[in-house]
Amino acid sequence: MEKRVIGIDVGGTNLRGALVGPDGKIINRMKVASDADQGIEAVIDNLVRLIKNIGGGEDVSAVGFGIPGIIDFKAGIITQAPNICNVNNYPIRENLRARLGDAVPVIIENDANCAAVGEWWMGAGKDVGSLVIITLGTGVGGGIVLDGKLWRGADGMGGEVGHMTIYPDGAKCNCGNYGCLESYSSATAIRRMVKEVLSDSSSQTALGELVEDEDPGRIPEAVMKAALEGDRAALGIWEQFGTALGIGMASLVNILNVEMIVIGGGVSQAWEMFIDRVLAELKRRALRAPAERVKVMKSVLGDDEGIIGAAYLALNVGKEL
Amino acid sequence: MEKRVIGIDVGGTNLRGALVGPDGKIINRMKVASDADQGIEAVIDNLVRLIKNIGGGEDVSAVGFGIPGIIDFKAGIITQAPNICNVNNYPIRENLRARLGDAVPVIIENDANCAAVGEWWMGAGKDVGSLVIITLGTGVGGGIVLDGKLWRGADGMGGEVGHMTIYPDGAKCNCGNYGCLESYSSATAIRRMVKEVLSDSSSQTALGELVEDEDPGRIPEAVMKAALEGDRAALGIWEQFGTALGIGMASLVNILNVEMIVIGGGVSQAWEMFIDRVLAELKRRALRAPAERVKVMKSVLGDDEGIIGAAYLALNVGKEL
Repeated sequence: MEKRVIGIDVGGTNLRGALVGPDGKIINRMKVASDADQGIEAVIDNLVRLIKNIGGGEDVSAVGFGIPGIIDFKAGIITQAPNICNVNNYPIRENLRARLGDAVPVIIENDANCAAVGEWWMGAGKDVGSLVIITLGTGVGGGIVLDGKLWRGADGMGGEVGHMTIYPDGAKCNCGNYGCLESYSSATAIRRMVKEVLSDSSSQTALGELVEDEDPGRIPEAVMKAALEGDRAALGIWEQFGTALGIGMASLVNILNVEMIVIGGGVSQAWEMFIDRVLAELKRRALRAPAERVKVMKSVLGDDEGIIGAAYLALNVGKEL
Repeated sequence: MEKRVIGIDVGGTNLRGALVGPDGKIINRMKVASDADQGIEAVIDNLVRLIKNIGGGEDVSAVGFGIPGIIDFKAGIITQAPNICNVNNYPIRENLRARLGDAVPVIIENDANCAAVGEWWMGAGKDVGSLVIITLGTGVGGGIVLDGKLWRGADGMGGEVGHMTIYPDGAKCNCGNYGCLESYSSATAIRRMVKEVLSDSSSQTALGELVEDEDPGRIPEAVMKAALEGDRAALGIWEQFGTALGIGMASLVNILNVEMIVIGGGVSQAWEMFIDRVLAELKRRALRAPAERVKVMKSVLGDDEGIIGAAYLALNVGKEL
């Protein structure tokens, strides 16, 4: 029988998984709440149930997990995951094996790395050998595939493109640095910029009204709506967002000369708000040959890229990837 | 008999080469003038003579060339080399084979890429799997080795770390961009900064005197001398130099999580002038785990790193590197 695997995207709110065939097609998908507020053991219970339900009694040859955090993929340990019960050095592979049995190999990987692999395998990058993915969400994540192989870095921390310095004296980032890409091109950055606009009494904007009642995670959508209605402050925020992203992408292109940059994550839905600025900065700042070579693409798999990437790693367990 | 190869560093002024054993040891070395002002055919003549003299009748299994320019290593073509007779799309491998015979494989590679491979094989990085080299000279070059393999990029342009944007509104770079690393941390940048200091009549400095009669390539040395004598303008120039380099290195560490960054090139001789600033910026800006991991080293092989790297590529001709 053909080899089937399960890919799982572990989030702070939901656990989303799918049974995936060797052709990368999703056969069956499911989603359950993470219950992360009830502790890591509750999350593990939910993961085990999810895996059993997705598998539905069928033979599954391996399970891959994409996890938001610092992952030691060789040891099978979550080194640090602030968004998953804030665990440190948690031996998730061992604990899952104790529940699932030794017969099913367990692979864990950082979620943005899974997204990079997913887009390279079945998404925007399926015809290229090298790409960088930049995921624009609450923060800015990233993953790097070179010659069809994930570049994890020496400590699994490779691809943290959200923490490139864009403006050395810029806004303070959560990581402690100043002027990171994440401080300009994330949902968190948009919230900061909205606050700055609103604290300036001279600016005329409808943002206050729009943003007031919004869930913080929905601020980018509100600012997009305002920009589409011609609100100048909102347009200015997207200009800052796109400029910083373009500067960062030009540096990435000059450093890595990759064939593609994929832009994913929830805020990539606002594509039309920033892409012109991104491409203008890229053209202005990157060296000619690599700038002409690189394709800039919106994520094709969207929310599924992590699941598909985790499934790819599960399918290729034991191979050096 | 043991396999021996020749590694050659092709420069605009000199051609330097060596016979190298499989252990990376130099058996015999020579240097001749490039005569680049007499055209590319004169350079080829000199290369052929150099190779015959170094080989001295012994069997040589391959020859590797490190060339300053954009290299298509697969096709064996110099795409662009402003410093070598300004050639474009020059089929150097074919032309050398016509002169040397088909029996001896010819490998060409960008000079900074050779430096990266040389330091990884026999120099500062001989115990690590991944490194970035940054070569500080007239410009700033670079090369990337990941998992013991040169990352060339899609067009052989990978590793152009000198053209990361450090200050988006900074000094104009030769590449057309603004605020590149090369605009702050190269001999050319030092010359610009000296001129800026001298054009400011309020600054008290001995730089004018020191710099006046100097060969432009020796300006960094003169500025170092002035700094060592306590000249505040000179100290300020090195501070700018080191700050920009540290900002760039922090971004590289966050993007690639490599085990080592090697600093080479002629201006790295001024190590003590900038290294404290570099390490301070790195500590301040890079994420904790990759910052603690990365070793920052001065080039060990110095001028020989390109020769040794070219020899390594020659020794491994046919393997995927």
